[in-house]
Amino acid sequence: MRYHKIPDETVRRLPIYLRGLMLSADSGQEHLSSKALAEYVGVPSWQIRKDFSYFGDFGTPGVGYHIERLAREIKKILRLDVIRRTALVGVGDLGSALLAYPGFRTYGLDIVAAFDVDPRKVGKRINDVKVENLTRIDTLKEREISLAIVAVPREAAQPTVDSLVAAGVKGVLNFAPCKVAAPKRVKVITLDIAMELARLPYYMPAG
Amino acid sequence: MRYHKIPDETVRRLPIYLRGLMLSADSGQEHLSSKALAEYVGVPSWQIRKDFSYFGDFGTPGVGYHIERLAREIKKILRLDVIRRTALVGVGDLGSALLAYPGFRTYGLDIVAAFDVDPRKVGKRINDVKVENLTRIDTLKEREISLAIVAVPREAAQPTVDSLVAAGVKGVLNFAPCKVAAPKRVKVITLDIAMELARLPYYMPAG
Repeated sequence: MRYHKIPDETVRRLPIYLRGLMLSADSGQEHLSSKALAEYVGVPSWQIRKDFSYFGDFGTPGVGYHIERLAREIKKILRLDVIRRTALVGVGDLGSALLAYPGFRTYGLDIVAAFDVDPRKVGKRINDVKVENLTRIDTLKEREISLAIVAVPREAAQPTVDSLVAAGVKGVLNFAPCKVAAPKRVKVITLDIAMELARLPYYMPAG
Repeated sequence: MRYHKIPDETVRRLPIYLRGLMLSADSGQEHLSSKALAEYVGVPSWQIRKDFSYFGDFGTPGVGYHIERLAREIKKILRLDVIRRTALVGVGDLGSALLAYPGFRTYGLDIVAAFDVDPRKVGKRINDVKVENLTRIDTLKEREISLAIVAVPREAAQPTVDSLVAAGVKGVLNFAPCKVAAPKRVKVITLDIAMELARLPYYMPAG
C-alpha cells in the first residue's frame, strides 16, 4: 500500500512522532493523548492532528492514540515495516561511528556492507561488517541492497553517488557537505552535520 | 544587530544557501543568479527570493547576487561571523568522529573542550583537544564556552543537558535519539541520524 500526497514536511515529522511513540511504549504506556504526544515530541498538537489527517485520524476521544497501533501504522506509511539492507560507503571517522551505531535497526535499516578505497581498511571487520574494496560496489544489486549511506570526503561524493545509482541503489543518505545530483527515481537526503550546528547561534542571546 | 521575525524554516534554509554560496566562491565565481543558486542548493528560486525578502533582497537584476557579500550577510544574520567556543560531551564513536570533523570551523564553531565519564578516555588527545573528566563541565562559563555538542547515550542525555545549562551554555546540538528539556533561553537542536535515514524508504519505489 502506498499513501499519496503527504507533504514532505509531514514526512519529515512522522519519524519524530514514531520515535516519541516508541519511547512511550518503552515506558509501559498503552495510550497517549495528542496533547501528551505533542509535549513529548515538541510539536504543537494542532500540527500533529493536521499531519495525521493526511492518512486518517487514529485517536479515540477521551482515550487518545493507541501507541502500538499508531506506531505500526506510521511504520507502514514510512515503509519501515520491512528490514532494508543498507550499504555504507566511506569507513573513516564518521563512517565507523555510523557502523557502530545501533539506532538504524530501530527503523528497519540494516547495514550489511561497507566499502572504502583505503587498502588498509579493506578486509577489516567493524561491528560484524567486513570492509570491502570500493570496486565491489557493483555487487549491490545482486545482494539486494537498495539503500546507501555516503560518508566520503566532499570531492568523492558525486562519483560515489553515481556508482551507487549505477548499482541500482534507490535511496541515499549523504553526509558529505555538498549537494549531489541523482536521477529523479533515486531519493537523496543530505545531512550536513556542521550546517545543523550553524543554526544555533541565531537563537542565542548576544554576548 | 539582531534580525527579528525570520521564520524557523527560513533559518533552517539559510545555512544551505550559505554553503551553496561558499562552494560557488570556491569555484571562482563572483556573482550568482537566483536561478543558479536555486539549482545549486536544490531549493526553488521563489522560495529563495521569499526567504531573502525577510531581510531585504541583495540581488541586482541581470547580474544576480554578489556571492561574497551575500555570504557575509547571511553569516551576520546567523551570527556566524564570530568564532564560537564549543564543547563536546561524549567521546564515543560519534563524538570522536565529530572531534575529527573539520566542517564545524566553516561555520565559526571551534571545538575547544571535550568531556567524558570513561577514565580510559580522560587525558587522551583527539585532534588537539584533550578529553577531560565530565566533572569539569562546570568550568565552561569561565572558559567562555557557550555552545555544546552532546553525543552521549540516550539515558545520559537529559542529565548532560542539565549540567550544560547549569554551566551557562546557551545552545546545544543533541545527537542522542531523544527529546531533551531545557529552559527557553537555551536553544536545543536534536539531530537523530537514524531518524533522518528513516525518511528514505517512503520515497523509494516498492520492491
